[in-house]
Amino acid sequence: MIIVMKTGASQLQIDGIEKFLKEHGFGVHISVGTERTIIGAIGDERELAVSPLEVMSGVDKVMPVVETYKLASRNFKPETTVIKVKGQEIGSDKLAIMAGPCSVESPEQILDTALYLKSQGANFLRGGAYKPRTSPYAFQGLEEEGFRMLAQAGQEAGMPVISEVVSPVSLEQALKYVDIVQVGTRNMQNFHLLKEIGKLKIPVLLKRGLASTIEEWLNAAEHIMSGGNYNVMLCERGIRTFEVATRFTLDLSAVPLIKELSHLPVFVDPSHGTGKSKLVAPMSRAAIAAGADGLMIEVHPNPKEALSDGPQSLDFKAFNCLMDDITKIAGIVGKKIQI
Amino acid sequence: MIIVMKTGASQLQIDGIEKFLKEHGFGVHISVGTERTIIGAIGDERELAVSPLEVMSGVDKVMPVVETYKLASRNFKPETTVIKVKGQEIGSDKLAIMAGPCSVESPEQILDTALYLKSQGANFLRGGAYKPRTSPYAFQGLEEEGFRMLAQAGQEAGMPVISEVVSPVSLEQALKYVDIVQVGTRNMQNFHLLKEIGKLKIPVLLKRGLASTIEEWLNAAEHIMSGGNYNVMLCERGIRTFEVATRFTLDLSAVPLIKELSHLPVFVDPSHGTGKSKLVAPMSRAAIAAGADGLMIEVHPNPKEALSDGPQSLDFKAFNCLMDDITKIAGIVGKKIQI
Amino acid sequence: MIIVMKTGASQLQIDGIEKFLKEHGFGVHISVGTERTIIGAIGDERELAVSPLEVMSGVDKVMPVVETYKLASRNFKPETTVIKVKGQEIGSDKLAIMAGPCSVESPEQILDTALYLKSQGANFLRGGAYKPRTSPYAFQGLEEEGFRMLAQAGQEAGMPVISEVVSPVSLEQALKYVDIVQVGTRNMQNFHLLKEIGKLKIPVLLKRGLASTIEEWLNAAEHIMSGGNYNVMLCERGIRTFEVATRFTLDLSAVPLIKELSHLPVFVDPSHGTGKSKLVAPMSRAAIAAGADGLMIEVHPNPKEALSDGPQSLDFKAFNCLMDDITKIAGIVGKKIQI
Amino acid sequence: MIIVMKTGASQLQIDGIEKFLKEHGFGVHISVGTERTIIGAIGDERELAVSPLEVMSGVDKVMPVVETYKLASRNFKPETTVIKVKGQEIGSDKLAIMAGPCSVESPEQILDTALYLKSQGANFLRGGAYKPRTSPYAFQGLEEEGFRMLAQAGQEAGMPVISEVVSPVSLEQALKYVDIVQVGTRNMQNFHLLKEIGKLKIPVLLKRGLASTIEEWLNAAEHIMSGGNYNVMLCERGIRTFEVATRFTLDLSAVPLIKELSHLPVFVDPSHGTGKSKLVAPMSRAAIAAGADGLMIEVHPNPKEALSDGPQSLDFKAFNCLMDDITKIAGIVGKKIQI
Repeated sequence: MIIVMKTGASQLQIDGIEKFLKEHGFGVHISVGTERTIIGAIGDERELAVSPLEVMSGVDKVMPVVETYKLASRNFKPETTVIKVKGQEIGSDKLAIMAGPCSVESPEQILDTALYLKSQGANFLRGGAYKPRTSPYAFQGLEEEGFRMLAQAGQEAGMPVISEVVSPVSLEQALKYVDIVQVGTRNMQNFHLLKEIGKLKIPVLLKRGLASTIEEWLNAAEHIMSGGNYNVMLCERGIRTFEVATRFTLDLSAVPLIKELSHLPVFVDPSHGTGKSKLVAPMSRAAIAAGADGLMIEVHPNPKEALSDGPQSLDFKAFNCLMDDITKIAGIVGKKIQI
Repeated sequence: MIIVMKTGASQLQIDGIEKFLKEHGFGVHISVGTERTIIGAIGDERELAVSPLEVMSGVDKVMPVVETYKLASRNFKPETTVIKVKGQEIGSDKLAIMAGPCSVESPEQILDTALYLKSQGANFLRGGAYKPRTSPYAFQGLEEEGFRMLAQAGQEAGMPVISEVVSPVSLEQALKYVDIVQVGTRNMQNFHLLKEIGKLKIPVLLKRGLASTIEEWLNAAEHIMSGGNYNVMLCERGIRTFEVATRFTLDLSAVPLIKELSHLPVFVDPSHGTGKSKLVAPMSRAAIAAGADGLMIEVHPNPKEALSDGPQSLDFKAFNCLMDDITKIAGIVGKKIQI
Repeated sequence: MIIVMKTGASQLQIDGIEKFLKEHGFGVHISVGTERTIIGAIGDERELAVSPLEVMSGVDKVMPVVETYKLASRNFKPETTVIKVKGQEIGSDKLAIMAGPCSVESPEQILDTALYLKSQGANFLRGGAYKPRTSPYAFQGLEEEGFRMLAQAGQEAGMPVISEVVSPVSLEQALKYVDIVQVGTRNMQNFHLLKEIGKLKIPVLLKRGLASTIEEWLNAAEHIMSGGNYNVMLCERGIRTFEVATRFTLDLSAVPLIKELSHLPVFVDPSHGTGKSKLVAPMSRAAIAAGADGLMIEVHPNPKEALSDGPQSLDFKAFNCLMDDITKIAGIVGKKIQI
Repeated sequence: MIIVMKTGASQLQIDGIEKFLKEHGFGVHISVGTERTIIGAIGDERELAVSPLEVMSGVDKVMPVVETYKLASRNFKPETTVIKVKGQEIGSDKLAIMAGPCSVESPEQILDTALYLKSQGANFLRGGAYKPRTSPYAFQGLEEEGFRMLAQAGQEAGMPVISEVVSPVSLEQALKYVDIVQVGTRNMQNFHLLKEIGKLKIPVLLKRGLASTIEEWLNAAEHIMSGGNYNVMLCERGIRTFEVATRFTLDLSAVPLIKELSHLPVFVDPSHGTGKSKLVAPMSRAAIAAGADGLMIEVHPNPKEALSDGPQSLDFKAFNCLMDDITKIAGIVGKKIQI
C-alpha cells in the first residue's frame, strides 16, 4: 500500500502515518519527492482495509498495490481451474455450450429444446425457474415446478442442467434438481446469497453485475471461495453503458483479461449481452475467438411465443448455424466441442 | 404501445400484428407513413409485457407509451405521500435528517453520536449492522448485536432508527429493533427481498441501484408496493459513471424529476454519493436546494477510527456547520427542520 | 414521428398539435388510447427537427420513427459500399489490415515497420503525424514532416497510407501525402472538420467518439456524406465506461449492428480499444469473427521506446502470430487476406 | 511516479528500471514488499510522460503521483482566479449569470431577450451563432450574422456577450464581436482550437466534454493556459451516463471538487445538463448552493418557436422566478448578484 501525502504535508503528519503503520505491524519506507512525500507500507494490505488511512491528517490518497482478492487470483493459483460436472469439463480445452430457453415453460417445451440442443452439440441445458424481472407484473417463472421440469428434461437428454437461484429458498430447492447454480447479474453482490453458496460444493456460474468492475466481480467470486467452494465459473453478460442500440454492451475484452488475472473459467452470454437475436451468432463467434471457455445461449423452439426474452432468443435453425461456425473457430484457438 | 414496422413490411405482416393484438384484447390503429407503417395498440400495455412483439415478422421496434410502474406513479396518485414514524414526518414540508455512523461499532459510539445528532437537529438515527462489502475480508458489521445497540441508542436519544437489511434473516431480526428498514444499492433488484418487505407495513427506504435507471428504480418500488406496503421512500446515492475523481456521481437531477414522476418522498445520501467528506456539505446544500425531502448522512465521532467508510464521514463539528446551512436553505424552498 | 400526449391532455391541446403538424405539411393520425392520446405525424420527420414539439402544451414526449441519418443508412442504399484505394479494396470480401506505429518518429522507424508489415500481409500503413494528447506536455507528433516520412515509407513498401487530421491546416497538408485521412475519436463531432472533408473525395476513416452512440456516429458520417464525399469507413475504437481495467471498452457488437444499419465498411482498433498489448491479439481475432471489414493495429519495432502509446503496441513478433490467426478466422466468415 | 513490479519480478528487471530512471534524471527509492517490489521515481514526472515504463520487462503498473496539469492547479496557484470583463467580475463573490437563447435567430429576438434578462439581474448575454448539431439537417446557426446581432443587442442592453466558436474561422470572426468565447462540449479536446485560443488573451469558457473526466477537463484548460491565456473559466454541462430520463447527468459534485483542485472559476449549465426546462430552476438553485461561480441558462421569449433546444429553454416568467431563488441562496453561500 502506498500513501501519497499532500503537497506541503508536515513532518508531524508524516510521523503520524509512520507510527500508525508500525503499530499495525507494517514495515515503512518513506520517499521524499520533489513535490510530495510518499510512504510505502510493507505487509499484507488486505488486513488494513478497515483502517481509513485516507482521512488521516496530511494524506492525499492511498493506493493499493496488490489485488483485493486472493483465492480467485492467478498469482495465487497459476494453473487454470477445470470443473467436472457429470463427465463434462469446464475450463479445459473442451468448450462448454450451455443452451436453452430463458424460462422453463412446460415439460414439452424444455424437453424438445433439450433433445434438439443435444443433437447439435450443446452439452449443458439451461432454463430459468426463478426470473428476476424489472416489473412486478412480468412473468416471474415456474419456481420449483420449473426446476423439476428442467431436471427431467436434462435426464432424458443426458445433459447436466443449470438454473438461476435468487434467494436462500430457491437455492435449497435447486440443490435437489440442478447440477450447477447460476447467480444472476442483479444478485452478483447479494453477499448473503454468495455466502450461502460458499458453504456448499455445488458448481456455480457467477454472472457479472451489470455495472460491476472486473475487480468487484472477482471479489464476488472471492466471497464464495472464501467459504470453501472453489467450483466457481464466471460469465460476462454485458455491462451498462450509454449506448442504447443494444440492450447492454458486451465487454468481450473481459475474457482475455480475466484469463490473465484469474484461474477461473470464463463464459460469455451473447443473448443477454446484446438483447438482439441477430447479434447472437456474430458475438458467439467473437467470444470463442477471444478465448472464452464456453457460451450461454438462449434458444427457444418458438421465440415469438416465449414468455420472457423472446427478442434475444435463437430458434433451432439459427442455433444450428451458430454451432457450425463455433466448431471451426474453436480449432483455431486450441479448443474443441466435447461430445 | 406503438409498433413500428420495418421499411417495406408486407401487408401480410401488418395483418399478422393486427390479428395478434386483437386476440389479446387490444384496439388497433394503423397509420401508413411515407417510409413505414405504424401500429398503435390501445389497451393496458402492462398486460402485454410477456408477449415479445419485437420478434414478430416485419416488426422493427416496439415503443411503450405509458410508464411500466403504476402504484408508484404520480399519474396514479397525484397527492404527495407523507409517511409518519413515531411522530416524525417524511415527505411533508418538514425535512427528515437521517444521520449516524456507517457501522454501529459499540454502544458508546452509537449513543454518543445519537445524543449529539439529536442536539443538532437530526431526527432519525442511522447505523449499519449488516454491511455489504466488496471484499469478503472487510468488516461485515455486528449483525443482530448492532441492531440492538442502535435501537437502545435511538430510544435513549428519542430518535426513530433506520438500518439496512440484506436477507430474509436480517429482515426478520430488524423488525424487532428498527423503525425503518433500508434496502441498499446492491439489493435494489434483489426482488426476493423486496417481495418479503412488500408483505409487511414497515416503512422502507429504497436506495437507487448504482446503475439503475429511474424507471427501474420506480419499478423496484412497485415490487414492494404491489405487495401492499405503500410506505416506500427513495434515496439517491450516486450512480456509477466513468468519472473516477468521486466514488460515484451524485445524480441530483433525479430529485426534481422523481417529484414529477412519483408521489414518493425522495432522499439524498451525499456521503456514499461522493465518497469524500469535503463534498458532503456542499452536496447536502445542493440536495435541499433541489427539493429533496431529506438527507442521509454519515457522521462518526472520530472518522479516522471508523471501521468502515471513514473517508466519507463527517465529524461532529462538520455536521454542525452543515445543519446551519441546511436550515437556511430549507426556508427558501418551503421546508423546515422539524423539532 | 409519434407525439404522445400527457394523461389528461385537453381536446384543445390535441387540436393545437394537429393544426401545427398540418401547417408543416404533415398528415395526422390520432389514436385515443385508454390512458393517453397518441398523434402520428406522417411525412419526412427530418424536416421537423427544428420544431420543438416537446414544449408544446399537453405533449409528454416525441418519438422519432425513422433514423435521423439517410445517406449512411442501409435502408437508403442496400448494397454494401466498397472503397478502392490504390488497388486495395475496403468493404469487400478482402480484409483491410491497417498497421503501423502510433506516431511517426523517424524515416527509419516508419520504413522498417512498413517493410515488415507488408511482408506479413498488412496492406495499409498507418502512422500519426498530428497526435491529439490529453496533456499539452506530451509528444504532439512531427506534423507535416511526419506526413512526409509516412508517404515516403508507404511508397517504398508499396502500401497506401493513412494518417489522422485534426484541423483545416493539417487536412490541407495531408492531402499532399496520404491516401486516406482519419478523423480521431476526439474530433468525431468536430463538425467543421467533417464538413471540410465532405467537400473532398478523399477516403476517410471516421473513428467512433469515445462516448458517441451508434446513431450519433452514423450522423457524423452523414455530415461528411451530405457534402458529397461518400468514401466513408467507420472504426470502432472503444467507448468510455465505468470499467477501469482496460483503457476503454471495445464495443464489438457495434460491428454486426452497423452492418445491419449501414452500408459503410466497419473497422476495429483493438489497440486503442483496450490499451493493453496482451489483449490486442484476442480482440483482433474476435473482431474478424464478428464480421469486421478490417483492423487498425498499432505496431512498433520497439514498443518500450515508442514516443506514444507504447503499452498498447505490438512488436513485430506478436503481429506475426496475430496475422496467422486472423488469416484462419477470415476463411470461416467468408473473408480473405488480400495480397 | 510509482512503479509497481509484477509478483516475482527478477532482480535484473528491477535493476533495469532503476537504470532507466537514473538515466532520465530521476532519484530512485526501492521498497521490497511481501508480495511485490515498488519503485519510487523522484523528479518531475510530467517529463516522463512519453516514456512507456509500462511495457518494460517485469512492470505491472505505473501510478502517477502528481496531477498531470500544472498551471490550472490550485497547488500551483492557491489564490482563486477572478476574471474581469467590461466591469463584470467572474470568480469573485459576485455571481455571473449568463443567459440568452440557444441560437441567435433575429435582431428582435436577441434584443428583447437581452433587455428582459438585464432587467432581471443577468449580467452576461449568451447566444449561439455557430451550432454544432448531431444531424447535418438541423439548424446550424446564423454564423457571422449571428455574432453581429448578439454584439448589437449586448451593446444596447449594456451586457458583455459570450458565444461559441467551433473552428479557426469562427474564432477569427468572434474576436470582432464577442467578449468571451465559448468552447463547447464536443470541442473540449479539439486541441488545435484550444491552442489557437491559447495564443490570445480573450476570456474563454471551456465546457466539460460530455465524457471527459475532471482530470482531462483540467488538462484541456492547461492546453489553453500553457499558450499564455490564463483567462479560463470552466462550465459543467452534464456528462453522458446510462440514464436516459434526462438528456445528460449534471455532475454537480464537480463544482466543489474543482474548487479544491483548481483556482479557475466554475459555472454550471443546467439547461443542457438536464435537457428539460422543468429541471432548470431546481438545478440552478442546487448549483449555487454547491458553490458555483455562475450559471449559463437558456432563455427564449417563446421556447416553442425556438429554432434549437426549445425543450430545455425557460420563458421569461420562469427565469424571473429562478432569479428570485438564486438571489436568496447566494447570500447563504457568501455570494451576491452583481448589478
